[in-house]
Amino acid sequence: MSKHLKSVPGSIVAPQGFLASGIFCDIKRLGTGKGSNKGLKRDLALIVSEVPATVAGMFTTNQICAAPVKVCVERVKRGKAQAIVVNSGNANACTGRQGLADAKAMTGLTGKLLHMPAEQVLVGSTGRIGVTMPMANVRSGIEAAAQLLGNEPECADEAAEAIMTSDSKPKQIAVEFKLGGKPVRIGGICKGAGMIQPGMSATGARPAAVPQGLHATMLSFITTDAAIGAKALQACLQEAVAHSFNRITVDGDMSTNDTVLVLANGLAANAKLGTRNAELKTFQTALNHVCLELAKMIVRDGEGVTRFVTVRVEGAKSHADADAASRAVANSALVKTSWFGGDPNWGRIIDAIGYSAATVVENKVDIGYSAPGSRKILWSLKRGQPTKTTFKQLCAAAAAKEFDLHIRLNLGRASALMYASDLTEEYVDFNKGDVSDPTTLGG
Amino acid sequence: MSKHLKSVPGSIVAPQGFLASGIFCDIKRLGTGKGSNKGLKRDLALIVSEVPATVAGMFTTNQICAAPVKVCVERVKRGKAQAIVVNSGNANACTGRQGLADAKAMTGLTGKLLHMPAEQVLVGSTGRIGVTMPMANVRSGIEAAAQLLGNEPECADEAAEAIMTSDSKPKQIAVEFKLGGKPVRIGGICKGAGMIQPGMSATGARPAAVPQGLHATMLSFITTDAAIGAKALQACLQEAVAHSFNRITVDGDMSTNDTVLVLANGLAANAKLGTRNAELKTFQTALNHVCLELAKMIVRDGEGVTRFVTVRVEGAKSHADADAASRAVANSALVKTSWFGGDPNWGRIIDAIGYSAATVVENKVDIGYSAPGSRKILWSLKRGQPTKTTFKQLCAAAAAKEFDLHIRLNLGRASALMYASDLTEEYVDFNKGDVSDPTTLGG
Repeated sequence: MSKHLKSVPGSIVAPQGFLASGIFCDIKRLGTGKGSNKGLKRDLALIVSEVPATVAGMFTTNQICAAPVKVCVERVKRGKAQAIVVNSGNANACTGRQGLADAKAMTGLTGKLLHMPAEQVLVGSTGRIGVTMPMANVRSGIEAAAQLLGNEPECADEAAEAIMTSDSKPKQIAVEFKLGGKPVRIGGICKGAGMIQPGMSATGARPAAVPQGLHATMLSFITTDAAIGAKALQACLQEAVAHSFNRITVDGDMSTNDTVLVLANGLAANAKLGTRNAELKTFQTALNHVCLELAKMIVRDGEGVTRFVTVRVEGAKSHADADAASRAVANSALVKTSWFGGDPNWGRIIDAIGYSAATVVENKVDIGYSAPGSRKILWSLKRGQPTKTTFKQLCAAAAAKEFDLHIRLNLGRASALMYASDLTEEYVDFNKGDVSDPTTLGG
Repeated sequence: MSKHLKSVPGSIVAPQGFLASGIFCDIKRLGTGKGSNKGLKRDLALIVSEVPATVAGMFTTNQICAAPVKVCVERVKRGKAQAIVVNSGNANACTGRQGLADAKAMTGLTGKLLHMPAEQVLVGSTGRIGVTMPMANVRSGIEAAAQLLGNEPECADEAAEAIMTSDSKPKQIAVEFKLGGKPVRIGGICKGAGMIQPGMSATGARPAAVPQGLHATMLSFITTDAAIGAKALQACLQEAVAHSFNRITVDGDMSTNDTVLVLANGLAANAKLGTRNAELKTFQTALNHVCLELAKMIVRDGEGVTRFVTVRVEGAKSHADADAASRAVANSALVKTSWFGGDPNWGRIIDAIGYSAATVVENKVDIGYSAPGSRKILWSLKRGQPTKTTFKQLCAAAAAKEFDLHIRLNLGRASALMYASDLTEEYVDFNKGDVSDPTTLGG
């Protein structure tokens, strides 16, 4: 962490002027089965700024996208918002016109209760796909949550819990830094454990080059009291997401609901940041840190996950090549099962690189292991040939719960990395569904 | 099966003039561990035609390709061959110059013993990656196998067993049909159970459009006594592989060694088939059947596999779209684990279609189930909306050990299918490796 950043408690209510709440309104009422929401009591959260805020968002590029995503994409374009209503237990995806009407009704009721226009309210959902929202419960939930809004850390804890589905724990962070001498804070919460390989864009539209294998729903909500323009905030969020949420994979499946939203309410009273402002870099560094730490929490808490591996590809001909090679390795069933076993199986790794869309030349490839972030690399393969490193040494490196996998293609100067998990029997058991319980349907 | 085709025993020795053998020469000597070759006693096979034969081949498009593939790609171009030497237990991949010399030495010794030029001998390998071949054992194995060549069905059984790695059983087929009144036979054997999503081309070079997610080694060796020209044979093999081996997936990983070879020795004495011959269609139909049945055996015998699902995508805008959508579904960890659980989870299916490279419109998508090959479809989703079909009915459809999954995009006229397996705890357990046993390294 940059020395200019300081950890603070309270996540999304750490910045000035933000309130949160999280309650149970029985959206998860069917959630008794394995792979579902058993034991999670909260299922609806509100996040509110006391004053209108600048907003930025990034959304799934899945062509099948949920109603709340559609609503947010349009509203974020206007650059201003003041509240977010989020539920777990139902994704409001593949729910047609009714789903869209329900998503808007959620924002309408929230706005009415909080005395703001519906258009100033954003919405997020995660859970079962293809079932319309239990709106009577949702309405009573929003009413209850609006009553309970507060800026104590417990309020943020309850919101972070309310957005969880298969997550084993809430995911939260907040940092403080200075802009022009003024203390500024960024806080965030997120959720996600399976159906995780986000590929988000600002509009939900796909980039010209579709990232290879775009793919649990992840939701993240970030608050800051920085004063910043909408364009600058969107640019900063895109940059931060590109190096965090869009670089993680648990199972290679991209959700219909992936969403990151940032509200910046300006109450820190710093000189307002624009796209050309030199202090923007300080804000960017802080936002990058918040997004990256949240993204890593998702991988570490992935369904059945026992290993956290950073796949670092260097020396590719192009960024697209580096991206393709890193995703092929990070999503290979054979590579991920070998990680689970602590098996330093470079044969499967070079195999995956070889079938990726990246240009690869066998006798140029280096593969090695290091401790997280270390450049002290134990090489298993150099220029396509096994090194003298012993199998025992390699096993010790691959036995670590967290390690970096270094892949050098030695063909160019482009690099990319992916934060990836192993594939375990527990993942399969968790996701094989429970046909006695329809609530396990969906993502 | 076409009424013009008749099943016959003997697989690769069913056609006239072919001999085979399979022996143990201790290439698998280290194979005591789980995930390896435990209990499989044979590890080297010979397949020989009594007369020089026309040859055709299809090879992995993985850029990391094994030495025997490199040797075969060059030799198949000449259009003539007479023998194939194959070993299991060592893939001879990522073995550099020594590997290439070893592969050629295998063909040289085989040629010497069988009194034919080395260039007339082809070679295949499967097993551990990155370890040079135990050539003393290989040499004594080739000598033993050459002594044991025979045309009894047991000889084919032994060859089929000798090419197995994680396969639970040998895979064989032979058919008879008529060309111009003359009885003609095609026989084949194959192996493969993990690292299975072949994407083969005639030269090992990638097509302009890399099939999405090309990816256990599969080897298949096919013999026929048909008289056919090299160009016609290669064209027929490309067509047959495009609809069989290149449409299967177990785990989405394409091997470094995938190879299909056909020897056609002409001893049936039919009028020689050329590319413009009307009877070529009869031969094509028979070859398609042999390749498809062998390919399906690989999926059904895949590591830990309990379900065989044919993913049928129709109504895509283009073949590339149909291909991308079918591969995204067939390789989705979440879809495959739901199949294991017998869970008719259409939310995960439409999610996978939506993140594929195919153009998809939510309110046009139909998803349904049928018995294998049946057009009596139980629809779970029509035009993006759940049908009235009950969850119980859908569960019954998804509980079948084999079923067809029908996906209609309703945007165009292109279609594609994939033969796919589920993803099970046994797959993970099998592939997590055994760090006490280095033989489990590699594919």
